[in-house]
Amino acid sequence: MKRIAVLGCGLVGSVIARDLARDDDLEVVAADASAEALARLSDVPRIRTRQADLSARYDIHDVVLDADAVVGAVPGFMGHRMLEAVIGSGKPIADISFSHDDPFSLDAFALQQRVTAVVDCGVSPGLSNFAVGRAIARMDEIEDVAIYVGGLPAQRGKPFDYAVVFSATDVIEEYTRPARLVENGVVVTRPALSEVEPVEVPGVGLVEGFLTDGLRTLLTTVKARHMREKTLRYPGHAASMRSLRDAGFFSGAARAFTERLLFDAWKLAPGEEEFTYLKVEVAGRRGGSARRYTAELFDRTDTKTGTTSMARATGFPCAIVARLLARGEYTEPGVRPLERLPENAGLAGSLLVGLRERGLDWKEGEEGQ
Amino acid sequence: MKRIAVLGCGLVGSVIARDLARDDDLEVVAADASAEALARLSDVPRIRTRQADLSARYDIHDVVLDADAVVGAVPGFMGHRMLEAVIGSGKPIADISFSHDDPFSLDAFALQQRVTAVVDCGVSPGLSNFAVGRAIARMDEIEDVAIYVGGLPAQRGKPFDYAVVFSATDVIEEYTRPARLVENGVVVTRPALSEVEPVEVPGVGLVEGFLTDGLRTLLTTVKARHMREKTLRYPGHAASMRSLRDAGFFSGAARAFTERLLFDAWKLAPGEEEFTYLKVEVAGRRGGSARRYTAELFDRTDTKTGTTSMARATGFPCAIVARLLARGEYTEPGVRPLERLPENAGLAGSLLVGLRERGLDWKEGEEGQ
Repeated sequence: MKRIAVLGCGLVGSVIARDLARDDDLEVVAADASAEALARLSDVPRIRTRQADLSARYDIHDVVLDADAVVGAVPGFMGHRMLEAVIGSGKPIADISFSHDDPFSLDAFALQQRVTAVVDCGVSPGLSNFAVGRAIARMDEIEDVAIYVGGLPAQRGKPFDYAVVFSATDVIEEYTRPARLVENGVVVTRPALSEVEPVEVPGVGLVEGFLTDGLRTLLTTVKARHMREKTLRYPGHAASMRSLRDAGFFSGAARAFTERLLFDAWKLAPGEEEFTYLKVEVAGRRGGSARRYTAELFDRTDTKTGTTSMARATGFPCAIVARLLARGEYTEPGVRPLERLPENAGLAGSLLVGLRERGLDWKEGEEGQ
Repeated sequence: MKRIAVLGCGLVGSVIARDLARDDDLEVVAADASAEALARLSDVPRIRTRQADLSARYDIHDVVLDADAVVGAVPGFMGHRMLEAVIGSGKPIADISFSHDDPFSLDAFALQQRVTAVVDCGVSPGLSNFAVGRAIARMDEIEDVAIYVGGLPAQRGKPFDYAVVFSATDVIEEYTRPARLVENGVVVTRPALSEVEPVEVPGVGLVEGFLTDGLRTLLTTVKARHMREKTLRYPGHAASMRSLRDAGFFSGAARAFTERLLFDAWKLAPGEEEFTYLKVEVAGRRGGSARRYTAELFDRTDTKTGTTSMARATGFPCAIVARLLARGEYTEPGVRPLERLPENAGLAGSLLVGLRERGLDWKEGEEGQ
């Protein structure tokens, strides 16, 4: 019997805890500061709930003490300290807490502690990084990487044709933080929401993609001539958001105010469905010939459970990796984002099988010899 | 020597005062509460400035006492009381103060006082009404009236591709107040910003038109099967404004906040040019045959004086009518919006000549016998 501690039981953490508890050789300790969040998990077999202050290092040490592996699913602003505390406790972790800090700043500490810390373990960052790793494993040289990702309401009609399935604060952060991308081998910075281009989502139609700062660890780990990440929204969204940003709605005192209105406006109504789409295109060379690799993921709200595709696509990769860690199948120490996973074909295969078992429709394509 | 009192010397009132003062047989009394506004007119020959509280009936009576005619150019919220005070003083008035009250509520009072009160004497309401009156004079029966009007920055790129040349409060009022229109002879109400359609502005390109509540007096004075007024903006504006409205940015406490941000964002920068476009299309019948009448006005910022096209197109019709009133050429008593002017071909001719003299490019077209 292996034990996994899940730190944070919000939208995604609770999906991960339930997924892990489906295995009868796993025991889950679900920790959160909110009694309400824990109550929703209290009658799930093999889940033990535990109220804890996950911003406090000693609480974290205490919760993970007898765990074989840890899942990090706390709010972004708490993410980095939580990660540091878990590494300090010597436990391996699969983390989807979206922190703005560079996870590699904890790499030396993780190596010293002999801890495997799989960071950015969701959909994007996460499966997008995994796809780039899959392409790297197939090529000698990477020329161009393009990542397109978005979670959208299935029907248009809400304000700005959007619905937020995580936090409005993080969305606005995405729209204000300058986007880093690679051009001719050099990291350059562009305004978020710029370089809008039409993108076809199969079964949905045309949406638009625009630059956001989503490359994160790939900026360090991948040597590519060109690399960019674009967020997907319904057409017109970027122009509206640029206008709001330029008019000052995302700055200073106005920002909290705007977030409050958009948070309400962008809530999914009961029964309202959403979808998540990820596409990664990598062009490169192998043995002198051009090669192309493409990965795609499309998922919709699970109407039986009401689980959003965003929670599924973010939570399931993390849950799958947490199992690999708990069972001692992934032991390389250090801070390891998902682009490193395909270095071990067995681990990559386990992730792909796990996605398929959970109904996440991952498609890969290759061209060239 | 005739004397005209100009009540309110803001953006448009000052343009009217300067226009009137170009005639050497006119004397202008320019009144405003703001010493600063008056200072800008103090060295113009034939303009006498006078500081006055134009929200106070006795101040108004005092200012207009020895005037032959009055121009009303106060902020909208003061408009109705000012109009009532001027009618009470027995002086004819040409008014462009955009009040939300129904001007016909003062019709009986104006008739009793034997006062000619030409209301909504700007571009739209104003020249749009005049165009409808011109069509009525040519037809037995009016089937369809469509009014398209907008003032826009000459270059896109500001937040929501807009610049406000009057007040942000009034713009947001336009976007929230339900639009009244006529369908099959019945007045119906639709949400503002709805029924978006593409409209070609000659020399500019495609913009979009959407319903706003701009018919005002025409709802009372014109018997048409169909009649609507649409405001023009660059494409995408209506969707963004609907989103802001639906998300609550135009309601409650949020509104003042939004107005403040948009007021700054929508200011024309020094040297930034704008244009005003008005198109009126009327279809009807005369002697059993179909007839069409079209009027168009396109004007740009006067780069020599910096006067906006919106101030020119709003102020000049008012200044021209004020002269007709001062000289006793227009004496029919009552509240008379501009659709009534073409009942007198001489008055209509004077307005058209006046527009041409001021470089306002008014074009009319007719089809049918």
